[in-house]
Amino acid sequence: MNVTEKTKITPWEVTGKVDYEKIMTKFGTEPIDQKILKQLSDLTSGDIHFMLRRGIFFTHRDLGWLLNRKKAGENFYLYTGRGPSDHTHIGHLVPWVFTKWLQEKFHAKLIFQITDDEKFLFNENLDSETTHSLALDNALDIVALGFDPKLTEIMIDTDRSGLLYPQAVKIAKKITFSTVKATFGFDQSANIGMIFYTSIQAVPAMIESVRNGKNIPCLIPYGIDQDPHFRIARDVLPRLGYLKPASIMSIFIPPLSGVDGKMSSSDPNNAIFVTDSEAVVKRKINKYAFSGGRTSVEEHRKLGGDPDIDVSYQWLKIMFEPDDSKLKKIHDDYRSGALLSGEMKAILIERVNSFLKRHQEARERAKSTLQVFLDDH
Amino acid sequence: MNVTEKTKITPWEVTGKVDYEKIMTKFGTEPIDQKILKQLSDLTSGDIHFMLRRGIFFTHRDLGWLLNRKKAGENFYLYTGRGPSDHTHIGHLVPWVFTKWLQEKFHAKLIFQITDDEKFLFNENLDSETTHSLALDNALDIVALGFDPKLTEIMIDTDRSGLLYPQAVKIAKKITFSTVKATFGFDQSANIGMIFYTSIQAVPAMIESVRNGKNIPCLIPYGIDQDPHFRIARDVLPRLGYLKPASIMSIFIPPLSGVDGKMSSSDPNNAIFVTDSEAVVKRKINKYAFSGGRTSVEEHRKLGGDPDIDVSYQWLKIMFEPDDSKLKKIHDDYRSGALLSGEMKAILIERVNSFLKRHQEARERAKSTLQVFLDDH
Repeated sequence: MNVTEKTKITPWEVTGKVDYEKIMTKFGTEPIDQKILKQLSDLTSGDIHFMLRRGIFFTHRDLGWLLNRKKAGENFYLYTGRGPSDHTHIGHLVPWVFTKWLQEKFHAKLIFQITDDEKFLFNENLDSETTHSLALDNALDIVALGFDPKLTEIMIDTDRSGLLYPQAVKIAKKITFSTVKATFGFDQSANIGMIFYTSIQAVPAMIESVRNGKNIPCLIPYGIDQDPHFRIARDVLPRLGYLKPASIMSIFIPPLSGVDGKMSSSDPNNAIFVTDSEAVVKRKINKYAFSGGRTSVEEHRKLGGDPDIDVSYQWLKIMFEPDDSKLKKIHDDYRSGALLSGEMKAILIERVNSFLKRHQEARERAKSTLQVFLDDH
Repeated sequence: MNVTEKTKITPWEVTGKVDYEKIMTKFGTEPIDQKILKQLSDLTSGDIHFMLRRGIFFTHRDLGWLLNRKKAGENFYLYTGRGPSDHTHIGHLVPWVFTKWLQEKFHAKLIFQITDDEKFLFNENLDSETTHSLALDNALDIVALGFDPKLTEIMIDTDRSGLLYPQAVKIAKKITFSTVKATFGFDQSANIGMIFYTSIQAVPAMIESVRNGKNIPCLIPYGIDQDPHFRIARDVLPRLGYLKPASIMSIFIPPLSGVDGKMSSSDPNNAIFVTDSEAVVKRKINKYAFSGGRTSVEEHRKLGGDPDIDVSYQWLKIMFEPDDSKLKKIHDDYRSGALLSGEMKAILIERVNSFLKRHQEARERAKSTLQVFLDDH
């Protein structure tokens, strides 16, 4: 895979094949290597999340620095986000699950920003009532994952603009149109809300320092497509006297149609939503999940399948099979031909539906506890 | 006077000679003519504020439409503003005095926006603590003028961004960079807060309609230099289902140095601040107020002075001598040579100091009532 001319990575669009090595070079980020994993495991009693072991979270900025400060006794906080353009799908949950692990391991406060203003400003067809309603809907999925209510503050942008806007103008004053033009590819037809928006997304990266009146390190887990925002934040925040936020970034979660690109809500058959029924999950995976298998059972038994391009396998690897030895057996059996594509899909369907059953129940319960997360912490 | 190439009128800078006839043509506004004055006096029991009679408020948009709706029984509200870059000076008070008259005559609610975000974003040398502190300071001058506390809501932008920002994004979505570039002359080095800002200034022009869930006409009195903001607001608000705000605009209040341009805080000797002492007022007017008199008393007695270019006379006309017959006598005596420049200055000094004595006392009392004006109404 190469970064071809067709490859496009912005916070709002990911197309084409993606070479993660080249992205690291281009974006100037560091790999999650053995050294950083050792630093982590020193602080987590040896526990390393499978998304780290498997390269799902594959790159970072200043994570070593942050862990050194943690080791020296200084706490950090976490910040991640969600753009509420639709119901939550499986691809969104991947970084959230990882963020929850970080919260548990480091007992870290988490700011979870829900950017309803962004989705309203960037989508001609979404009105502000819809994006706000989706923000509340998506927040239920965050709560359902089991974040610590004492340590987790969900900020819906238009509900918290009294807090966010006065800080955002401080950031905005340091960012020119030239910069956002070069960073996001805006032209003169961009609306002025889009142009301003990145300063709103930067605020949570400094807000705990603002609130506490002293610098508190911040770690931001996110999908690599959000990196342009945080490159700007890292440039500006030190000029306001705050620390550069550290970050840890994940690959894109592939759509059902194939391992290239990023799962998106725009084609509902390419994503599995947290609200999908068992039957819908089964149908979507059986019908749409791109298979790395052969054209006939006989050929598959003889030549084996390719797990690297099999979306069902990739989803097991990314999210649904935490056990490395079980995953290896699935991988090897598929490669050898012992495991058929239909069987691979059946494993994934069972895992996804089992996960969603619990999630949907937790989502119902979340309706009664949501407000605790939305309150000023 | 012509609109020469040197003439520049933006919300942040006014330079060169100004031809108000040409401005009306260029901006597409209507004159305050006998017809509109008749409409007004029909609703004010015949009272017409001297600033209307004298052409200080000289032009408008849709004022006839608004007065017709008022006559038919529909109330309107008022909206004006202040950019807190320094202490309040006399030039700022002129439209506020007129706005207070409108409030009294029409028993109209007034939204008074104090744009501390704007002044912070547009001035490299102002930090956000300073602009916020100046906002509170300037608010005392508003309260001191005697606005009705029940009908007057002072909104400091960074204190009220919880209300303003969610509405501003709706406006911002309808405004492109091209538009603000053409309207305000921004280039690519403009910061992204400046670019977004006009959408914050547009919000009060619709906020009472938002709050009441039905359209309420809005009348905005302002200095003509603010017109670019409201041209944009009038374009965008109807596309969101709101009424175009009506407006009534004043000339620029001249600095002490001469009748061209606009009083500004940047040269303290050219402005009289509301906090200036009696001695300072006397010194500034005697030393800096541009005189329309002759070079010697003898020549002045023989040839007379020119009140049209005499700043002291202009200030009496604009603000400090409401009585038309008294003003006419001052005018005619100066023209004939009976009134000397020093005598003209003495009249102005007495009036300004008398006004400021009452204002400064009221300003002290305002400290205890300010919060009532700042609260959500």
